[in-house]
Amino acid sequence: MKQGQASIAFQNPVHVVGMASVAGKKEGEGPLGHTFTEVDEDPMLGKDNWEAAESELQRRAGELAMKDAGVEKERIRYLFAGDLLGQLIATSFGVMSFNIPTYGLYGACSTMGEAMSLAAMMVDAGNADHVMAMASSHFASAEKQFRFPLAYGNQRPYSATWTVTGCGCTVLGTAGGYARITGVTPGKIVDLGVKDSMNMGAAMAPAAADTIYRNLEDFHRKPGDYDRIVTGDLGTVGQTLLMELLAEKGVDIGGQHMDCGIEIFDAQKQDTHAGGSGCGCSAVTLCGLILNKLRKREWKRVLFVPTGALLSSTSFNEGQSVPGIAHGVVLEAV
Amino acid sequence: MKQGQASIAFQNPVHVVGMASVAGKKEGEGPLGHTFTEVDEDPMLGKDNWEAAESELQRRAGELAMKDAGVEKERIRYLFAGDLLGQLIATSFGVMSFNIPTYGLYGACSTMGEAMSLAAMMVDAGNADHVMAMASSHFASAEKQFRFPLAYGNQRPYSATWTVTGCGCTVLGTAGGYARITGVTPGKIVDLGVKDSMNMGAAMAPAAADTIYRNLEDFHRKPGDYDRIVTGDLGTVGQTLLMELLAEKGVDIGGQHMDCGIEIFDAQKQDTHAGGSGCGCSAVTLCGLILNKLRKREWKRVLFVPTGALLSSTSFNEGQSVPGIAHGVVLEAV
Repeated sequence: MKQGQASIAFQNPVHVVGMASVAGKKEGEGPLGHTFTEVDEDPMLGKDNWEAAESELQRRAGELAMKDAGVEKERIRYLFAGDLLGQLIATSFGVMSFNIPTYGLYGACSTMGEAMSLAAMMVDAGNADHVMAMASSHFASAEKQFRFPLAYGNQRPYSATWTVTGCGCTVLGTAGGYARITGVTPGKIVDLGVKDSMNMGAAMAPAAADTIYRNLEDFHRKPGDYDRIVTGDLGTVGQTLLMELLAEKGVDIGGQHMDCGIEIFDAQKQDTHAGGSGCGCSAVTLCGLILNKLRKREWKRVLFVPTGALLSSTSFNEGQSVPGIAHGVVLEAV
Repeated sequence: MKQGQASIAFQNPVHVVGMASVAGKKEGEGPLGHTFTEVDEDPMLGKDNWEAAESELQRRAGELAMKDAGVEKERIRYLFAGDLLGQLIATSFGVMSFNIPTYGLYGACSTMGEAMSLAAMMVDAGNADHVMAMASSHFASAEKQFRFPLAYGNQRPYSATWTVTGCGCTVLGTAGGYARITGVTPGKIVDLGVKDSMNMGAAMAPAAADTIYRNLEDFHRKPGDYDRIVTGDLGTVGQTLLMELLAEKGVDIGGQHMDCGIEIFDAQKQDTHAGGSGCGCSAVTLCGLILNKLRKREWKRVLFVPTGALLSSTSFNEGQSVPGIAHGVVLEAV
């Protein structure tokens, strides 16, 4: 790639050789329910608090992904993982038992893209035969962290999204499996001044547009060169804005765009308003629908672009805007 | 490296070609004050709140490091950065103006080691000519996040550390500069069950011992092969425990060990109890004392091991233990 371009086209084979998704009851009842590895009806996952429940999602997804790959934990050289909670507390307690050298990541809801990117670079560089990448979110731990305690029963505007309870985990290797990772387009922080924490889709759409546009430019591709261009959790409001922003640059992805947040729930029946969100939203959609479509070669090439809104309760209370970031990963059928 | 070993010995040149440290008044008055690039006497750094002040530390350190390296921001291909605050809010707003593709990291106070490791791997792999790595902390934003508001005026036990106000930033390239990075030893999450958030040194010492021991084993080195083995912020209490844990494995680093947290303040005169802490503590000590000693060849080889305590106010309130993590980076004189 040329100076000024952030994308990397991998020189060596990087394959997704194992995956798992563990999701909650509401996600299991949604349109993608049948694609998940495991659905747990208990929102506490047998634990004492929401944070421990989210850690349990990570532990189970990690174990299942390693089993799916047929790789023992001693052979996973590095783990890239993250979640939405302050100080990545779900991750620290979720992955500790694996005893794998760990890089903690925070990219808000773009974390699965960030983790997949860095893990893929490690395999491409020959630094590891097997690397694991995972991200999680939990509806209740996220509401407690970012908005209101559940017991408060506040009303939610129609632009609001519903945080997915789930963890997606992939094991990367050098051959076979579900799909190849052929390149990445790392995300920049983009801020168009959106200040509404109940309208994350609008905050993230500019970053998604930036990453998608740079990906197409850097790889000399048209939208039609992808079977799907998959954003993380823009929801219906963010999707409209994404289309507008790309149209301004002369790019039309109307025939290819899919948003995990729109797919994961039936907004009418499940009362989820603008769609699903959270690190887990794109992670479980990847480790279910997307990788299976690639494995069956129903899709040949997908641009996976999880989107993150960079805010905290502190930045929100201090009146700051909500910048976005989106990390792009190119997946191709083997 | 063999199966089961996490360390990487770089095959290609990775150099620290620029650096900067921006620190607060108390740090400027300490024993390392003369080594910092810039000291700002104003704890708010001219901003409206503590979080914005910490973001300003990052922005200034980044600008100064690029200037020191003689590299324009358009030529920095990636940025690895993090801080201690929930959702990395100091980083998001601190580095946004650079417009550089960014990977947000959370490794608690080990973040500078995590950032240097991943940035170095990118250069070694040929994915970038220039990559930036930075980490920050701010006394007031950290106290607000983890302990008590400053106005509460609570007493601090002697095992407590004092969060450093500062940001250290390095620019990595392929030749010249202050030092070479010749290898890394990624950290595992280690939990010996410490539950005292006022005794972080004890929580982090087991992780530091694990990383140092694995580094010596993986690279077939003795402690004397390093001029210094530098931990991040164990403080006096953690240092004693680190020595004991390594002695149990037959390793004596008494002649080489240095802790940034112990060096950065004069504990007697500055009333900082067990020492300094925070991501910024090891970051400004690296981007001052350590890299200058290497540049002058007073030290030939250093193992830099920033140490992190993986807790949040939520995990503490829920009675969880405090696991630790430590990322090792091998620096050698050019």
